[in-house]
Amino acid sequence: MKESPLFWPAYLNSKVLFVLDETLVPQYLRYVKVKNVDDAVKVIRDMKTRAFGQFLVVLSTFLLELERHPQLNGEELQEKIGNIAHALNRSRPTFPFAEVTGGIVQWADQALKAGQDVRVVVLKKVHGYLQGIRYRRLERVAKIAATIKDGDSVLTHCNVSGELAMAAAMCQSQKKDVQFYCTETRPYFQGSKLTYWELRQMGADVTLVADNAIGTLMADRMVNKVIVGSDRNCANGDFANKIGTYQIAVLAKEFKISMYVLTQPSKRIASGADIPVEIRNEKELLEFNGKRFVAGKVHGLYPGFDVVPHSYVKKEIALNVH
Amino acid sequence: MKESPLFWPAYLNSKVLFVLDETLVPQYLRYVKVKNVDDAVKVIRDMKTRAFGQFLVVLSTFLLELERHPQLNGEELQEKIGNIAHALNRSRPTFPFAEVTGGIVQWADQALKAGQDVRVVVLKKVHGYLQGIRYRRLERVAKIAATIKDGDSVLTHCNVSGELAMAAAMCQSQKKDVQFYCTETRPYFQGSKLTYWELRQMGADVTLVADNAIGTLMADRMVNKVIVGSDRNCANGDFANKIGTYQIAVLAKEFKISMYVLTQPSKRIASGADIPVEIRNEKELLEFNGKRFVAGKVHGLYPGFDVVPHSYVKKEIALNVH
Repeated sequence: MKESPLFWPAYLNSKVLFVLDETLVPQYLRYVKVKNVDDAVKVIRDMKTRAFGQFLVVLSTFLLELERHPQLNGEELQEKIGNIAHALNRSRPTFPFAEVTGGIVQWADQALKAGQDVRVVVLKKVHGYLQGIRYRRLERVAKIAATIKDGDSVLTHCNVSGELAMAAAMCQSQKKDVQFYCTETRPYFQGSKLTYWELRQMGADVTLVADNAIGTLMADRMVNKVIVGSDRNCANGDFANKIGTYQIAVLAKEFKISMYVLTQPSKRIASGADIPVEIRNEKELLEFNGKRFVAGKVHGLYPGFDVVPHSYVKKEIALNVH
Repeated sequence: MKESPLFWPAYLNSKVLFVLDETLVPQYLRYVKVKNVDDAVKVIRDMKTRAFGQFLVVLSTFLLELERHPQLNGEELQEKIGNIAHALNRSRPTFPFAEVTGGIVQWADQALKAGQDVRVVVLKKVHGYLQGIRYRRLERVAKIAATIKDGDSVLTHCNVSGELAMAAAMCQSQKKDVQFYCTETRPYFQGSKLTYWELRQMGADVTLVADNAIGTLMADRMVNKVIVGSDRNCANGDFANKIGTYQIAVLAKEFKISMYVLTQPSKRIASGADIPVEIRNEKELLEFNGKRFVAGKVHGLYPGFDVVPHSYVKKEIALNVH
């Protein structure tokens, strides 16, 4: 299967993690070098990487730091791992980093308790975890392709890190005639910059629309399915995703269009009310490519995500739990 | 009453019409000089002016051209007026220019038929029409202010040419505590550039949000009223307005928030299905301040307006017919 660069946007090469700078895509395919936990926190906070890329960075940072400190013993590694987890958890609020880092902390604790080599156990488990995720994501690509039928016109929002684009390619090889619409996704334009590009790269028929055009698009029956990702999932099916997803869900309901959500099922959060939403710096509304275009003193409000009640979702396309 | 520059964005000074270049507001308050019908068509098509400004330009263009051609007799003026009307009607499709120009053509025809001085009749009637519109718009400002109650939080979209900002100032003098939220209004950012600025100029408490944040804003009960303008109205209450208005209407319904629309009642179009929607050049989605920011060959769809069914509207705030 042809792979989108966004499907696996960070890879480890000896002591350096190469992280795709998604803010430069598609003009440039450049990778930021991450060498330690501080670099990792920065690359996440600056949104050089996002969504799935962040998980790769979080997991890989433990591998990096274990490589960097070959001299540490079991107790020292346990403390180190706790500190890395703490730093990563604080990088951005909406993502469930603690769910991932908590598991690694636990592996270290258990290994130490059982008298095992903490380094070996943690390295092996993190590598295994990464492999597992990769396999399960490829499985999900096939599930997405199965959800899309011949003649469908699919709206998406923001970017789902390669999976939708690869599903589009799979649909083509299955001889399905499918159209895609992607939103611009203000204020970061992930749709204009990432989603459009990768769908196009995969040979899909895709049209870019303003976030404001979704109502009209649906009223005119130009789309019949919505497929979006999710950044955080709740036990009851509520989910957080890029700002704008909630209103797409409401519109889909109004116009009787099915909404599908790619999920990573989790029972740790009961419902959407418990998801903390990141309020990003208002200047991101006022600047374009680092240059301010809105004059004067302006007060803006920029929640980075919204939380969508599960009642709007037709079906989850879940990452399998193995 | 303090007046927003957007309330009356074009004024005639001898043989030149000075049209506020709204694409430069608020960085610069610059006026484009319009001297004839060709300049007028260009200033409209380039969206230097929009919404109400266009009507001022259309009406004033007849005054300009009558001034420019003092030598023409009644028959020649009649033909001239017909040609001006034709050129203006074709400038942009969604606006009801023909409704305005048709009236002027009729005045010329009637004057000629009645043996009156076509020039004198048309000049007098157009001037009177402009005065009347001014008075009725000031009346509507008071109606908007009466609609806004103490403690309200009002969402608006795009820009309603000074009226909402002046109503905000009126609310302040009435000691009402009111908050405003305005959308960015991609792709032209009329909200970031015009609406935020003029509400602020009038001393209002205003916050800028991405178009994508409306669902969240409503779900969190941060707004309790929506007030928008309309570019074209139908006999049944359907209306066309800036792209994005339809989805705001659907969201307002879902979250039980009242939607008010400033209208210019008209019986010429039966319903929304009969309104032609302007599809603007897709490059407007791909460029920012004239510089392209989306790489590669991109196919975009940019309807400039959407047509909102009347069922979503709580109440029209109409321009009185005198």
